Amino acid sequence: MALNGLRVGVEPCGMVADGDAFVAGEMERCEADFAVLAVTHEAEAAVDRGYFILSEVVVKTSQHAYCVLGRASTWGDSDLLSMELQLAAYVGLKRVLAPELSASTNLASYARTLLALVSNTAGVPLVVRVRAAEGAWARWNRVRMLCGHQVRLQVALELGDDACDLSQWRAEPVQLIVLPTRMFVGNAAGYPVLRKDHQAEIKRWMDHAVAYVIRQSEEDESVDLIDYVRYLRFLAGTLEDPSAAAAASAEYRDVLQAPLQPLMDHLESATYETFEMDLPKYDHYEHAMMRAIQDSPQKEIVLMVVGAGRGPLVTRALRAARQAGRAVQVIAIEKNPSALVELQLRNANDWGHQVTLIRADMRGWVPTQRADILVSELLGSFGDNELSPECLDAACRLLLAPRGVCIPQSYAAYVAPLSSTLLHARAQAYGDGHGLETPYVVNIHAAHILAEPQLMWSFSHTQPSDQIAGDNRHNQRWATATFRVQSPSLVHGLAGYFDAVLYGNVELSIRPDTHTEDMHSWFPMYFPIKQPMTASPGDELTVHMWRRSRESRTWYEWAVESAGREASSASSLIHNINAHEYWIGH
Amino acid sequence: MALNGLRVGVEPCGMVADGDAFVAGEMERCEADFAVLAVTHEAEAAVDRGYFILSEVVVKTSQHAYCVLGRASTWGDSDLLSMELQLAAYVGLKRVLAPELSASTNLASYARTLLALVSNTAGVPLVVRVRAAEGAWARWNRVRMLCGHQVRLQVALELGDDACDLSQWRAEPVQLIVLPTRMFVGNAAGYPVLRKDHQAEIKRWMDHAVAYVIRQSEEDESVDLIDYVRYLRFLAGTLEDPSAAAAASAEYRDVLQAPLQPLMDHLESATYETFEMDLPKYDHYEHAMMRAIQDSPQKEIVLMVVGAGRGPLVTRALRAARQAGRAVQVIAIEKNPSALVELQLRNANDWGHQVTLIRADMRGWVPTQRADILVSELLGSFGDNELSPECLDAACRLLLAPRGVCIPQSYAAYVAPLSSTLLHARAQAYGDGHGLETPYVVNIHAAHILAEPQLMWSFSHTQPSDQIAGDNRHNQRWATATFRVQSPSLVHGLAGYFDAVLYGNVELSIRPDTHTEDMHSWFPMYFPIKQPMTASPGDELTVHMWRRSRESRTWYEWAVESAGREASSASSLIHNINAHEYWIGH
Repeated sequence: MALNGLRVGVEPCGMVADGDAFVAGEMERCEADFAVLAVTHEAEAAVDRGYFILSEVVVKTSQHAYCVLGRASTWGDSDLLSMELQLAAYVGLKRVLAPELSASTNLASYARTLLALVSNTAGVPLVVRVRAAEGAWARWNRVRMLCGHQVRLQVALELGDDACDLSQWRAEPVQLIVLPTRMFVGNAAGYPVLRKDHQAEIKRWMDHAVAYVIRQSEEDESVDLIDYVRYLRFLAGTLEDPSAAAAASAEYRDVLQAPLQPLMDHLESATYETFEMDLPKYDHYEHAMMRAIQDSPQKEIVLMVVGAGRGPLVTRALRAARQAGRAVQVIAIEKNPSALVELQLRNANDWGHQVTLIRADMRGWVPTQRADILVSELLGSFGDNELSPECLDAACRLLLAPRGVCIPQSYAAYVAPLSSTLLHARAQAYGDGHGLETPYVVNIHAAHILAEPQLMWSFSHTQPSDQIAGDNRHNQRWATATFRVQSPSLVHGLAGYFDAVLYGNVELSIRPDTHTEDMHSWFPMYFPIKQPMTASPGDELTVHMWRRSRESRTWYEWAVESAGREASSASSLIHNINAHEYWIGH
Repeated sequence: MALNGLRVGVEPCGMVADGDAFVAGEMERCEADFAVLAVTHEAEAAVDRGYFILSEVVVKTSQHAYCVLGRASTWGDSDLLSMELQLAAYVGLKRVLAPELSASTNLASYARTLLALVSNTAGVPLVVRVRAAEGAWARWNRVRMLCGHQVRLQVALELGDDACDLSQWRAEPVQLIVLPTRMFVGNAAGYPVLRKDHQAEIKRWMDHAVAYVIRQSEEDESVDLIDYVRYLRFLAGTLEDPSAAAAASAEYRDVLQAPLQPLMDHLESATYETFEMDLPKYDHYEHAMMRAIQDSPQKEIVLMVVGAGRGPLVTRALRAARQAGRAVQVIAIEKNPSALVELQLRNANDWGHQVTLIRADMRGWVPTQRADILVSELLGSFGDNELSPECLDAACRLLLAPRGVCIPQSYAAYVAPLSSTLLHARAQAYGDGHGLETPYVVNIHAAHILAEPQLMWSFSHTQPSDQIAGDNRHNQRWATATFRVQSPSLVHGLAGYFDAVLYGNVELSIRPDTHTEDMHSWFPMYFPIKQPMTASPGDELTVHMWRRSRESRTWYEWAVESAGREASSASSLIHNINAHEYWIGH
């Protein structure tokens, strides 16, 4: 029944007498995917008795458990709550909504009860119901901290009349968006619809794979929920279909991937193939090469593709040469012997044996002729994290002619502080508890980027190879940047981005504000911090980051410090000191 | 040579040519216990060479390593520092002083270098040299946090002309107090002495088992260090000898002990003996019993000692009866069968068979006659933590006559936030990584109590037994208290105390401000928090604490929240939820 994968549930007002009957009949009629129903009729008497009697229980069988979301009693008796959760687990309910967390809730007591319940009951996550309003996030944040960042606590966010900024909530484990019927207005035909601003907000959340609940407000006891459910499905139907690239990358939302180790491991053909699908990226490369060819003073231009892989840059180089109408000798260098087989195949089938193929590591091969243009695609999500600087230092020295051009000419790394409960929990679960001192490549989605990214460092390959500055030769870096936080936040780490100048004004970028259109080869980086840090509006977050190398390893170290106006400050550990959890091998 | 265990070292100004010669000759002459000497002559050239040549090295052999404290080069080259630390470890130096941490130090870079060094080098702790001045502690705190609370980082605190409050530093791993010679003034005879305020401060530190270093200021190049060393030893000689009790408890400074489980385990005779040595405590009990006997309207008074152990309260009860000149029948009840043997022995030898001995658990025995006065010593460091409430509820109900008196009549628990690097490190090391959710009994010493203790809760046994209020019967408690922090601090947990009313105005207390004189039975409690929290002057720290019981277990849960004036706030986990690390068995 769910259109576009959108799940819509209903929460009738008042107490439903018999949950199983409701599911079998009324919910069906409402065209809802699930219903939010109380677990019991607030059966305090059951506590002393030690068990429920049939008439006290709303959902009795496991037959409809998949489409019922339990709602726990109010806080009167935490023993009753505990019994309700046991019953919910037994019946097979997948989630139970805790009583509302509001401005009048005693947070310590609320958190204690929740934590005791999720620590006790195997399997049923508790969903904290909050109304989106001033101060709601700070309350949730305190409860979550008091509960030690328990992953089995989730959020049901109820929207209201206030139009407030919900971007903070995108970093939280929001499972449900609750829409009370009183939020709706009547259209000309008398059917319930949402105001424009609410429509926009709800469409934004439809991208977050949450479910929706239509909650029947008490004053709307007589309205028919089916109209609301249908309207929400209609709204989902008005969403634009995502592009193929966006749909593909949606699969990878918030999925942590260890960065590639392209120098240590040989890539597989399928990995190359994935990269080659990014046409916008290769269009930019082709354009950069064409410009460089046009600008070259040589009569016969030697163009080397170093790390040619299966040859996508070779194809583009040949096209760029044709477009520029210049004689270009293309040499492809690749260290992966298996990829070299495919290069030979393409040379025979597609390139008319025009291309000179060399099996070599660009860092150690001495050619008979030098390149006027040296092209590589060694950039990682953080620019230098696949060791482009180390490779190109050597390649420029050994392979590039005195006035030769290196494509890319330069690249830079950027970071921004980030909040994301999900990414942090996943990093913590990654790699047997060692996952919080490792950076990840990840399509960051359920996150709140807390400030504009700032430059950490850059690498340049525009200087003649024998005049590389000391700093660039060693490729060590150290940077500090300070960010001003706008809203109360829990910092879970850093988002990392890069941009690059391929040639002249031909650039690539994965920074959110300058992202190259439709390019999808690179997801950002996520650098977690072990212990999440609180930050208040006006606080300064200072990020320290190091790029270090020793012997055959290069790695990053990072730390975050916070300082409030009142000089209160906290500092994280310097993560991954001496590469003790993560490094890139040469 | 060390008088009163005081270790005094010397640090000559400038560079010593040959450390071994210095130790063999000059240090001996100065009557010093150790010397602070550079490891090398800032031999940058060694880095490229890969090893030191003899003339670059100050301390060459391991022969004098025990009395040399290495001093590392300035920060010019962290590779040199790394080589120096390797040499220091090889020669066997026990500690190396890092370059000074000052207001102009780049903290992130300093911390990174330190952390990389202590992570790499096996065994040699690094001592961070700081001058006691405004802002010094905050700098050290940032470095320590950036280094992830590394236990191999210590502090050398150099005193100066500023008289500033050093109480923050008592919570830190201060290993050395450095006294520059320019701090000294000349007395009438021309010998160096310290100002009165400096004398007082230094005497306070002599209680902290740190070592002292006389550092020769550059302007004092020609002074003779022996005069300074002798003066410091003279100063140590003016310290009062501690009382026997103080000397005994000094042994237990900052030693974590798991709280007793007196209901689950039978105590050993030696444990009883230790408790019995606390005469001031029994004097107060005797006084309370005498008053209660005097106040009793009965002609023949029945006095029961419940949990009599080896009988110290029985002896005092008999003395109280004699002093009051009243007829008192003393009944001693003890559940430990081995202790009962000793009670029989004392009844025969000391008490003239006057005492009725009963082997019973006070919670289940039904007597033939009821007590007019019921005396127990079930109090723990936190008052109720050895389950006095549970025991006395039962005992008062079963054993006490309608208008009978229970001694103690009431008791209360207090907490204060505390900073102590040492206690936190020890709790972390305790019990295989589970030690941070357990309270400890500990003679808290290397700590800074951040605010006056506040009441958490109390228990009273003054009501007739069948009218015990619901709350007291269940013995569950929940309390919240808010503290205002005065100085920038790192909160490592809570100190716990108790006081008790034995009878009328006869009271016992282990609260610092009302501590019963010379009483030494109880050390305070330490409740750690997993993650240390920063607090700034003016910040509010809120402590939540729960006393919970279920079935045969009673336990505490605790959490700390901080809130600054700018609404920045952080919350700890609720520790020990559902007794998952610690409980007291019934």
